[in-house]
Amino acid sequence: MNDKLLVLGTMAYDAIESPFGKTGKILGGCATYIGLAASQFKIQCGLVSVIGDDFKTAHTNLLSSKGLDLSGVVTIPGEKTFFWSGKYHNDLNTRTTIDTQLNVLTKFDPKVPEKFKDASIVLLGNLDPNIQAAVLDQMSAPKLVVMDTMNFWIESYREKLDEMIRRVDVLSINDEEARQLTETHSLVEAAQKLQALGPQYIIIKKGEHGALLFHEKRIFCAPALPLEEVFDPTGAGDSFIGGFAGYLSQRGSIAFEDMKTAVIMGSAMASFTVQKFGTECLESLSFEQLKKRILAFKSLSDFEIELI
Amino acid sequence: MNDKLLVLGTMAYDAIESPFGKTGKILGGCATYIGLAASQFKIQCGLVSVIGDDFKTAHTNLLSSKGLDLSGVVTIPGEKTFFWSGKYHNDLNTRTTIDTQLNVLTKFDPKVPEKFKDASIVLLGNLDPNIQAAVLDQMSAPKLVVMDTMNFWIESYREKLDEMIRRVDVLSINDEEARQLTETHSLVEAAQKLQALGPQYIIIKKGEHGALLFHEKRIFCAPALPLEEVFDPTGAGDSFIGGFAGYLSQRGSIAFEDMKTAVIMGSAMASFTVQKFGTECLESLSFEQLKKRILAFKSLSDFEIELI
Repeated sequence: MNDKLLVLGTMAYDAIESPFGKTGKILGGCATYIGLAASQFKIQCGLVSVIGDDFKTAHTNLLSSKGLDLSGVVTIPGEKTFFWSGKYHNDLNTRTTIDTQLNVLTKFDPKVPEKFKDASIVLLGNLDPNIQAAVLDQMSAPKLVVMDTMNFWIESYREKLDEMIRRVDVLSINDEEARQLTETHSLVEAAQKLQALGPQYIIIKKGEHGALLFHEKRIFCAPALPLEEVFDPTGAGDSFIGGFAGYLSQRGSIAFEDMKTAVIMGSAMASFTVQKFGTECLESLSFEQLKKRILAFKSLSDFEIELI
Repeated sequence: MNDKLLVLGTMAYDAIESPFGKTGKILGGCATYIGLAASQFKIQCGLVSVIGDDFKTAHTNLLSSKGLDLSGVVTIPGEKTFFWSGKYHNDLNTRTTIDTQLNVLTKFDPKVPEKFKDASIVLLGNLDPNIQAAVLDQMSAPKLVVMDTMNFWIESYREKLDEMIRRVDVLSINDEEARQLTETHSLVEAAQKLQALGPQYIIIKKGEHGALLFHEKRIFCAPALPLEEVFDPTGAGDSFIGGFAGYLSQRGSIAFEDMKTAVIMGSAMASFTVQKFGTECLESLSFEQLKKRILAFKSLSDFEIELI
């Protein structure tokens, strides 16, 4: 494998309300979170996205300064950047969308830069499956295609979504979405049904309960770090999959053992993201902090079985 | 430590309905599940409980055949055994009690047999906190007092329950109960509040999401085995704590490392219990099967961090 990771996703502005406070318009979008998480690894990571001319230079500069390649990010003049605003309820597990302004997204014609067409890993962030397909069509021969989805596309684009699912190697989905997509309560059965659709690897994200990785008959269970305070769950899933794909890309392997560690990397990234509003925590995250957290994950779940 | 475990709890008959079927009157009660789980270990385990004269000899024989000491089980002539019937809903996470007949429980005056008064571990199963106190008062100097509770006692016996909580070392409680008892959503904060009440160790059971063990500033996160089919969750929490206490008793140690393994033992026991109705799975469980499952738990959560 080479060490190139191509990421498709949104770059956006969000306004977020949680029981812990309220933000103005802040940087968001799945490509942003994915990119920031992936930038922790020694890889070449290119973003394919679309922004309006209201997108702040400070924000493109921030992403560039992390080593992210933005040559696949198109600016549409006279249009505004995708905007989402939402409110989290007391348990932080449910949220209500207050406003969605698609803006530039309605005109998004994704173009993969020449130098990323041979990327070994493609990560298709949560977006219209038609756009995910358009990006995948431009890739030469990726070794691993990772796709993240969410319920909006399950409800409204089911046929196209199923078609895309058949084309990916790793499907990352949250527990409720997995149940909805397969009409099955048991997550083990849901994962089996999803594997039958095509992907060899299924990741089911369970928020504060961690994540499950399924491959053939094997299962890996990653804990979530029990946190005293979760401020804002926005971008947790995106940070997760960005850390996952970034690590695998650096590692240059898709062996199950590496996939397991990649799931822990993703879980660590998500644990940082939720500790502050928006991208704040990921923006200032050092590799030393990440290393310490990975060790915390290890001690969280490690146990001895010398007795039996 | 010696290797004696004294268990207080109910012996009962249950009638259970789940989406997978319906039972007639079957063997139940927390002392039954705890005893069956603890009987996997090389310890002396005595039960303190109460039954009516309708309790079948086949059932006392079953428990005796597992090496459980029943000299602390009182039969009240002319009275019937405690009976509970309930129905689980589709997601198996919620249940409705159809009928509760306390019967002998209203006359329960627990007597700890002389030879178990010096047991090093006392496990107070889910029961009236007044009865839990009466048993603890009879013990000479237990090294570890473990208590399991459930919402019924939180709602109706709060003052006595708080008094008991102050007297125990390990409090085992499920996530919803922990939130209810502490009026806190975050489980980490809830555990801190519970530790402040007295117990040095808090176990929060999260059902299909595993269990958390808190001690001082340390946290251990045990996964639940992802199961394709869960038939009947009855007794899962009791089997858990029985496996936990049984293992610690055999181990003769309450070091944090041993507590972690004990939580895995408990999780394994619970994973067996839910796979069949009632006590069926535990009744026929071999130590070989338990060993295999512990290895499954190990591979479920083990990962390498050679890279960083």
